[in-house]
Amino acid sequence: MQDSMNRRIVLASRPKGRPTPDNFRIESAPIPAPKDGQLLLETVYLSLDPYMRGRMNEGKTYADASELGDTMIGATVARVKQSRHADWKEGEFVLAYSGWQEYALSDGRGLRRLDPHSAPLSTALGVLGMPGFTAYSGLLEIGQPKAGDTVVVAAASGAVGSAVGQIARIKGARAVGIAGGPEKCAFVKDELGFDAVVDHRAPDFADQLRKACPDGIDVYFENVGGQVWDAVKPLLNKFARVPVCGLVSHYNAGADGAKEERAAIDLQDLLFRSLTVRGFIQVDFVEQYEADFLREAPQWVKEGKLRYREDIVDGLENAPDAFIGLLEGKNFGKLSVRVKPEGQQSK
Amino acid sequence: MQDSMNRRIVLASRPKGRPTPDNFRIESAPIPAPKDGQLLLETVYLSLDPYMRGRMNEGKTYADASELGDTMIGATVARVKQSRHADWKEGEFVLAYSGWQEYALSDGRGLRRLDPHSAPLSTALGVLGMPGFTAYSGLLEIGQPKAGDTVVVAAASGAVGSAVGQIARIKGARAVGIAGGPEKCAFVKDELGFDAVVDHRAPDFADQLRKACPDGIDVYFENVGGQVWDAVKPLLNKFARVPVCGLVSHYNAGADGAKEERAAIDLQDLLFRSLTVRGFIQVDFVEQYEADFLREAPQWVKEGKLRYREDIVDGLENAPDAFIGLLEGKNFGKLSVRVKPEGQQSK
Repeated sequence: MQDSMNRRIVLASRPKGRPTPDNFRIESAPIPAPKDGQLLLETVYLSLDPYMRGRMNEGKTYADASELGDTMIGATVARVKQSRHADWKEGEFVLAYSGWQEYALSDGRGLRRLDPHSAPLSTALGVLGMPGFTAYSGLLEIGQPKAGDTVVVAAASGAVGSAVGQIARIKGARAVGIAGGPEKCAFVKDELGFDAVVDHRAPDFADQLRKACPDGIDVYFENVGGQVWDAVKPLLNKFARVPVCGLVSHYNAGADGAKEERAAIDLQDLLFRSLTVRGFIQVDFVEQYEADFLREAPQWVKEGKLRYREDIVDGLENAPDAFIGLLEGKNFGKLSVRVKPEGQQSK
Repeated sequence: MQDSMNRRIVLASRPKGRPTPDNFRIESAPIPAPKDGQLLLETVYLSLDPYMRGRMNEGKTYADASELGDTMIGATVARVKQSRHADWKEGEFVLAYSGWQEYALSDGRGLRRLDPHSAPLSTALGVLGMPGFTAYSGLLEIGQPKAGDTVVVAAASGAVGSAVGQIARIKGARAVGIAGGPEKCAFVKDELGFDAVVDHRAPDFADQLRKACPDGIDVYFENVGGQVWDAVKPLLNKFARVPVCGLVSHYNAGADGAKEERAAIDLQDLLFRSLTVRGFIQVDFVEQYEADFLREAPQWVKEGKLRYREDIVDGLENAPDAFIGLLEGKNFGKLSVRVKPEGQQSK
């Protein structure tokens, strides 16, 4: 049976600290009909990423906050379900930004066509998508890893961290990963080929990190903040570079007992060691780096130099729980939701 | 009468907080005789700069600490008094690093020949020397001012700050200076041609700074820290750049009642506004920028685009008091000591 209703997940209330299921609400509305020049997109995969937590707050973070009742935002892999646009054919796959819903209209702007035969479609949300590009652009533009450098990254089994370490190795640097628990650590070392890995849950984590970086740290790709940053700071070498793309350990800070996290750097440390610390979001670098990324990254994946792991959850209704787990590091690999099956159109 | 003794000022004890005269001791020793391949240099001008305060502490800051009893370090303009080196003639002027003393031996390494007819000799320690180069290289490499940008600098009547603002204007940016007291503020605005100036001693300083920067701040050249940094931070625009070359308001922090100063930045601020904060010392940039600086800066001085003011104190014995005053902002312009007259050799 053809769907007639579009299910979507909206922001029901703003979390204080850790999000809970009641911050989300599932709604249904008739599937909209495309007008001339429009497409109807059917969501196949929905990307879940830590940055979405910021949008749930009131006020500006990187970008404008979502309003209560808004559909949760997010990148998607979608199928063109109906086309009234000359440039797009029904059945084509695209990278879109439909958000947490099954169907969305588009006028074609901002879509990128995906070839399902060149790489698994889900990778357009991960290693070959925004997280991979975040790693690539931030590491090359700000981190500037040189042969022999020590590059450290946390959440090293995750979508961004896994790419950071492997690209660092492609550039001849030594990659040290930080991950949570023995299973993720083994994956980072054995499957992703990092030179060393440290478990941030270990009671002597800071000491282990120091031992894993006997020549100090030249590049620290910051995506978590908190205690990891505290352990990294004293190890930064003269001229070290710190791209800051996220602070996931801080996102749930706030009311209801979640520990308040803070990560800061004294200008004096920065001065005495000629450090560079720079915040970015990947859109800052699209113009300069995207073409190179789309040429190099798929090639690295084919050559086995850039491996990845995906954690795919089935069903739109499971997105809130999966997202809540993401902020606590419960996922293992790039987290996405399979909203509709890839291989068949809904009947 | 020919001098037979070399007077020098040594580190007698380490200051706790603000230096005092008894941290310095004047000593005399026979003037050394150059061997083959050596020069005897006679100090004409001695540069006094805030970074010297760091060397008086125990432990490493930018560079190794001075030992107790060591001659205080520092750049000098010197005359070749005796030469037993084929490349150097008696009577030539050089930029040297003799420290706080009247005479020093050199093997010629690291000296730069100065032409007393092309620019006043003292400028080799100021606008055409290390402070000017600090401004030039830090501003161009890290600050990257573009036409229409707002560039803010403190200690704007001083050696580095005055050059930062004027070079920003040469690059088409709007220069906002911060200085202490009406006399310095008038100089910054009227003589140096900054677009606006704010007195950091005003009780509503932060408010005045905000009004002087109606479009926010794109580049803040950090050389003071403390309350100025606190006022600047909320005004930094998305993509703002902060070269950090000094924190003079912190240098006297410590024991004996001097207020403890701290300047830090939260990684979250850095992330949400894609800020770049980078510490440097000018030696980091010599290779890349020195030749350009030595070509451009003298030309700008000749054209009247790069003005400067010098505060010259007579007599080596007055160096400690002058230096103590420098750390409190008592100088007005680039501070140097005239150790020997320019125009005549000592008889």
